[in-house]
Amino acid sequence: MKSRLHDVWAADRGALNGWLSIPSTVTAEITALQDYDSLTLDLQHGLVDYQSALELMQAVTGYGKTVLARVPWNEPGIIMKLLDGGALGIICPMINTAEEAARFVGACQYAPRGYRSSGPTRAGLIYPDYFKNANDTIVTLAMIETVQAVDNLDAILATPNLTGVYVGPGDLAVSMGKPPALDHTDPEMAGVIDGILQKTKAAGLKCGMHCLNPPFMADAVKQGFDFLTLASDVRIFTAAQAAGVAEFRKLGGGDR
Amino acid sequence: MKSRLHDVWAADRGALNGWLSIPSTVTAEITALQDYDSLTLDLQHGLVDYQSALELMQAVTGYGKTVLARVPWNEPGIIMKLLDGGALGIICPMINTAEEAARFVGACQYAPRGYRSSGPTRAGLIYPDYFKNANDTIVTLAMIETVQAVDNLDAILATPNLTGVYVGPGDLAVSMGKPPALDHTDPEMAGVIDGILQKTKAAGLKCGMHCLNPPFMADAVKQGFDFLTLASDVRIFTAAQAAGVAEFRKLGGGDR
Amino acid sequence: MKSRLHDVWAADRGALNGWLSIPSTVTAEITALQDYDSLTLDLQHGLVDYQSALELMQAVTGYGKTVLARVPWNEPGIIMKLLDGGALGIICPMINTAEEAARFVGACQYAPRGYRSSGPTRAGLIYPDYFKNANDTIVTLAMIETVQAVDNLDAILATPNLTGVYVGPGDLAVSMGKPPALDHTDPEMAGVIDGILQKTKAAGLKCGMHCLNPPFMADAVKQGFDFLTLASDVRIFTAAQAAGVAEFRKLGGGDR
Amino acid sequence: MKSRLHDVWAADRGALNGWLSIPSTVTAEITALQDYDSLTLDLQHGLVDYQSALELMQAVTGYGKTVLARVPWNEPGIIMKLLDGGALGIICPMINTAEEAARFVGACQYAPRGYRSSGPTRAGLIYPDYFKNANDTIVTLAMIETVQAVDNLDAILATPNLTGVYVGPGDLAVSMGKPPALDHTDPEMAGVIDGILQKTKAAGLKCGMHCLNPPFMADAVKQGFDFLTLASDVRIFTAAQAAGVAEFRKLGGGDR
Amino acid sequence: MKSRLHDVWAADRGALNGWLSIPSTVTAEITALQDYDSLTLDLQHGLVDYQSALELMQAVTGYGKTVLARVPWNEPGIIMKLLDGGALGIICPMINTAEEAARFVGACQYAPRGYRSSGPTRAGLIYPDYFKNANDTIVTLAMIETVQAVDNLDAILATPNLTGVYVGPGDLAVSMGKPPALDHTDPEMAGVIDGILQKTKAAGLKCGMHCLNPPFMADAVKQGFDFLTLASDVRIFTAAQAAGVAEFRKLGGGDR
Amino acid sequence: MKSRLHDVWAADRGALNGWLSIPSTVTAEITALQDYDSLTLDLQHGLVDYQSALELMQAVTGYGKTVLARVPWNEPGIIMKLLDGGALGIICPMINTAEEAARFVGACQYAPRGYRSSGPTRAGLIYPDYFKNANDTIVTLAMIETVQAVDNLDAILATPNLTGVYVGPGDLAVSMGKPPALDHTDPEMAGVIDGILQKTKAAGLKCGMHCLNPPFMADAVKQGFDFLTLASDVRIFTAAQAAGVAEFRKLGGGDR
Ligand SMILES: [Mg+2]
Ligand SMILES: [Mg+2]
Ligand SMILES: [Mg+2]
Ligand SMILES: [Mg+2]
Ligand SMILES: [Mg+2]
Ligand SMILES: [Mg+2]
Repeated sequence: MKSRLHDVWAADRGALNGWLSIPSTVTAEITALQDYDSLTLDLQHGLVDYQSALELMQAVTGYGKTVLARVPWNEPGIIMKLLDGGALGIICPMINTAEEAARFVGACQYAPRGYRSSGPTRAGLIYPDYFKNANDTIVTLAMIETVQAVDNLDAILATPNLTGVYVGPGDLAVSMGKPPALDHTDPEMAGVIDGILQKTKAAGLKCGMHCLNPPFMADAVKQGFDFLTLASDVRIFTAAQAAGVAEFRKLGGGDR
Repeated sequence: MKSRLHDVWAADRGALNGWLSIPSTVTAEITALQDYDSLTLDLQHGLVDYQSALELMQAVTGYGKTVLARVPWNEPGIIMKLLDGGALGIICPMINTAEEAARFVGACQYAPRGYRSSGPTRAGLIYPDYFKNANDTIVTLAMIETVQAVDNLDAILATPNLTGVYVGPGDLAVSMGKPPALDHTDPEMAGVIDGILQKTKAAGLKCGMHCLNPPFMADAVKQGFDFLTLASDVRIFTAAQAAGVAEFRKLGGGDR
Repeated sequence: MKSRLHDVWAADRGALNGWLSIPSTVTAEITALQDYDSLTLDLQHGLVDYQSALELMQAVTGYGKTVLARVPWNEPGIIMKLLDGGALGIICPMINTAEEAARFVGACQYAPRGYRSSGPTRAGLIYPDYFKNANDTIVTLAMIETVQAVDNLDAILATPNLTGVYVGPGDLAVSMGKPPALDHTDPEMAGVIDGILQKTKAAGLKCGMHCLNPPFMADAVKQGFDFLTLASDVRIFTAAQAAGVAEFRKLGGGDR
Repeated sequence: MKSRLHDVWAADRGALNGWLSIPSTVTAEITALQDYDSLTLDLQHGLVDYQSALELMQAVTGYGKTVLARVPWNEPGIIMKLLDGGALGIICPMINTAEEAARFVGACQYAPRGYRSSGPTRAGLIYPDYFKNANDTIVTLAMIETVQAVDNLDAILATPNLTGVYVGPGDLAVSMGKPPALDHTDPEMAGVIDGILQKTKAAGLKCGMHCLNPPFMADAVKQGFDFLTLASDVRIFTAAQAAGVAEFRKLGGGDR
Repeated sequence: MKSRLHDVWAADRGALNGWLSIPSTVTAEITALQDYDSLTLDLQHGLVDYQSALELMQAVTGYGKTVLARVPWNEPGIIMKLLDGGALGIICPMINTAEEAARFVGACQYAPRGYRSSGPTRAGLIYPDYFKNANDTIVTLAMIETVQAVDNLDAILATPNLTGVYVGPGDLAVSMGKPPALDHTDPEMAGVIDGILQKTKAAGLKCGMHCLNPPFMADAVKQGFDFLTLASDVRIFTAAQAAGVAEFRKLGGGDR
Repeated sequence: MKSRLHDVWAADRGALNGWLSIPSTVTAEITALQDYDSLTLDLQHGLVDYQSALELMQAVTGYGKTVLARVPWNEPGIIMKLLDGGALGIICPMINTAEEAARFVGACQYAPRGYRSSGPTRAGLIYPDYFKNANDTIVTLAMIETVQAVDNLDAILATPNLTGVYVGPGDLAVSMGKPPALDHTDPEMAGVIDGILQKTKAAGLKCGMHCLNPPFMADAVKQGFDFLTLASDVRIFTAAQAAGVAEFRKLGGGDR
């Protein structure tokens, strides 16, 4: 089960992750053509449900990116469906307690490690020896994005077979009484996030974060982050469309 | 039949047209949220067929843009289907002779002007008094994109009820033995295109062109163009994705 | 190849035809549950293209109605695809000359009668002995809906293997300089339509018509029509939605 | 965040709600063209899942109706996905206890009021200042449709930030040992429902109900109901199709 | 509510069940054309979600097979949606305790037997007197596929209104520390499975199993099994494609 | 523009072609996982239209097969759309004259060789230097499948830039007054087909044929054929489903 993300991590480098929120095989394939290490299908806040996710996974298969999926909620049905469909990892939102983390990781692991049901319909077609390798390959990232999760971080990090955590800076800010935002630089938010990073690395786990801008992301790798997401297809497309139109309008476009 | 494009033209201004090549209601809606005057669904080189086009037209309806469609070829079946579906105009590729122009325009006009079949299933739902107003509202733009078309331009421009022409700089270049490109500045291409513009304006018709960059487009309006397309959703998305990834990689992104 | 429409005609009765313009298997199945003799998928003015049409044909298969399709235009590609997909007949719009009629019917008939290509992928699955029976079963209805068609009617009716004609009262009115309408009762339109009926019946062919209201339709059967369409799913749904809302509003609905 | 439903309620009037059970943008758009105040996508008993719901929300955006969604069950994943997709409110079935009500409302409210995760991908595009306004705008209607819910009504109504309740007369009847039906007039059912209305209004909350016929609905507004649903697209279409066919058959349609 | 599966069981015969994992109405219809007694849509390990499942159910309706669905997990939302969509039964994975069995069966039964919500949108259209007959017709099969489930089998079998159990040999093997496989013949697995069969039959309930090969299946019927699944559309298609290609390659196909 | 089909031909070997008639990315991907050299999407008799074809092309991209498409008819619109979508070649049905062949090939070639319009939206993304290489890479196969085509074969083979021919044995049989069949062994059919092969090879062009069984195909390669199709996904799936069910029934499956 070859995976670029695992190779990047084996080289102790930070991975560049693309984010797919648009239910279109076309935007997915264009994204897959770029030099990302992994791609995450967002079934939580993205406009994507299982059937679209399956098509997106098929459309990006040829481009050598590791495919992950963020699920809408910590529910075994959708977690297992996405793994059976070929995702090599799951990002689970709102993991606030060790019990929730155990339930999440268990859904991703076959017995005796967990309670994942066997039947990797597409995964078994595209990966040789899937059953033998799945438990050791599947990436599980628990989202740390509330004050409660930060409080429970030690226990969460102790979950067997958890790959790591994924910081959700938007929800974390909301949980701390602030408006949602990414790429935080104010000391309070930055401090909390650095605390998550330090504990996660100390536990020997991977630490990822949702970001917006390449400079912030490159810096985060240097601080120790292992997995950084570049905005999302929705944000990138919206910004680019807006920029072109604004440039035309600013030039007096339309005026003779 | 209110139409922003008609209002822009009534004010003798140049219209900013968005281009939809992606068969996704999400990218279409995001595009429709921008300050475009019109949107064109590209069923020729775009990755869009009728059924997707219908959904795109529905998804952008609320944003007040005039919706046009470029058809795959000069065939009455698809032209009429798109008009029935609510497009207020058609861009027809590869109009090289007056006879082809007449066949195109006839497909867009009810008798006695043309041979369009009556049955505006969606158009009749969303536009009051559709039958009464359609013939005078529907925009017909013939693409001028070959040497043959340039040679026949006078006859093409004489087609009754033709709204105007749309310059296809890529195909025009190919037809002249050059690689396809947009935003031509070399004197030969620029000269041919200016010739099209002058003849079209002299005939009292509208002149549009497929472009890439806002400065070129703003300049084209000043030269007399009435309708300028900003690249396409595919180009805009691809460029923006590539730029973000390149910035991260250039910053040594991934390196500790 | 059992077909309720053929049975109705064998009993010399008029057939009740339902009209599917909505690309939804749900509305199609609901329509198929009603006591129609046949159902026509409208790929011309309906909001339906081939891929949707295939799904609609599958969704209505269990309900014993004969399935026909109206094509967007007289083009062999789409005619043959719909027959291969399981349609037992084609309604072709805008047949104005004998040559057009021959081209249409030829596309529906295997050699030596016509030039239909063999490969009935779904039709061959659902109908036993398809190749042997297709030529004698496939229904071909040429739309007579212009002054030119009326003028050429004798020649059109002489087309070998043509099943009959289908009157398009809306387009016929437009062609005669009137607004499009159905269920014509004014003497001029009624006279022209009766002329079509008499010639068609005299030629031993079937005569159908697009209608709106049951009383007009029941009367048309008595006049000799063989195939009457009850409005369309779009019209029926729109009228019913509007009626319910209007009743509520008229009752002062919303007022305390 | 302009919303017609909020305007109707601000004027202390009863709102007319349309009900979308068909996964078709065409029937949705036709419904949106009518004079409804709001539209509810039914993901519970309707034939609609998330991906279709997204397309329906896009297709009706231009018509100024407030869009709500009924979820299949009280699960945070789908509730949040629909809100992120642009629904301005949620109807949650089978709320039988105060605990269930709190879990439901919490999924619809950002901290500190609830536990909704931030990431309004489409909602943020179409509504300015979404985060600031969402908590005060999102409509939450708990379905009261079992004997248990009626017994626990006081506690349910005390749920902070609950907008109101929506009576499900069909399930309520089943729960009381009767066959499912709407527009109840028998004294026992009518009495229970009136009890729900009185308590809900006394608590200062909104009271809605699923209905069938405009006269019953208009009367319900006068009794104090704030939100009345007119059957569903499935019922309306089925009844209208059946009526037309029955009329033709009754007229001896088909007989010469 | 006519059902071939119920007829087969009434004749005390073993039913042949087809398995639909491919989200395609075409493969579903081809499968429905075969001599199966029932068809199960697999929403757990199959590549099928609700919206596809609905289309599959519509596509197979005309072929007289009883339609069941396996849900992704024991969640009432999706169970009820599938029943409302017309499935006549549910196979629920991973039922390990009597409490889980009761929750599953309750979701399939209207009060007073269970807590299924009333609103059989499609089921009510296609089955007369649905509400009256549903509780006695709906098939509920609990999957027994873990050591825990085997341990709790007596209590599970005591669940009121449970139709029977469905053995999942793959997961059962995993739970017992073996690789997943079907058609087990080793004594340990065969013994456990026979134990399930004996207890289930002794309880007067139906016993089904997921299988691979017809001889194993025919034998299982003779042992007492009531419901046997022939592999899946994915396995059947993959094997057949591979066999044809292998035969060509083995023949030196491609060599001159 | 790497292409396995071109490599096979460069080694003067016969290519094994898979045939996609099912509009499902799942069956397409399973087919692409097999050891085919190329895959052809059938938009003529297959149940596939453009929008599905695009998704199929995306789903098979990662498996290194050369992708071709058969168009419904010799129409430039759909030919160019499929090439723009990434197909590396076109099979065109019913090429009966040199004029038709020239029209077909011209639609596949940029000026000055042909009249293909430039705008390879997806092809340009996935193939570097597409415009420079397309004319020399695109495969054009004219179907020879009527008596008329056989009569005109010399002239058809003289078409500049034609890659070769593809024998349609079913239609050829029909054209010769026989029932449609594949893998002909009767001397008359075999003789005509051998004549096509000899002339095509003598002209230095490629010769392909639609076949059913691997032994016939392996033999055809030895006779000189360059491109052999193994039945179709529909035939393969139908036969395999039927075989499994028949085996169970023959074993008395279902009997105790
Ligand atoms: Mg979050
Ligand atoms: Mg062009
Ligand atoms: Mg007409
Ligand atoms: Mg209810
Ligand atoms: Mg299992
Ligand atoms: Mg052929």
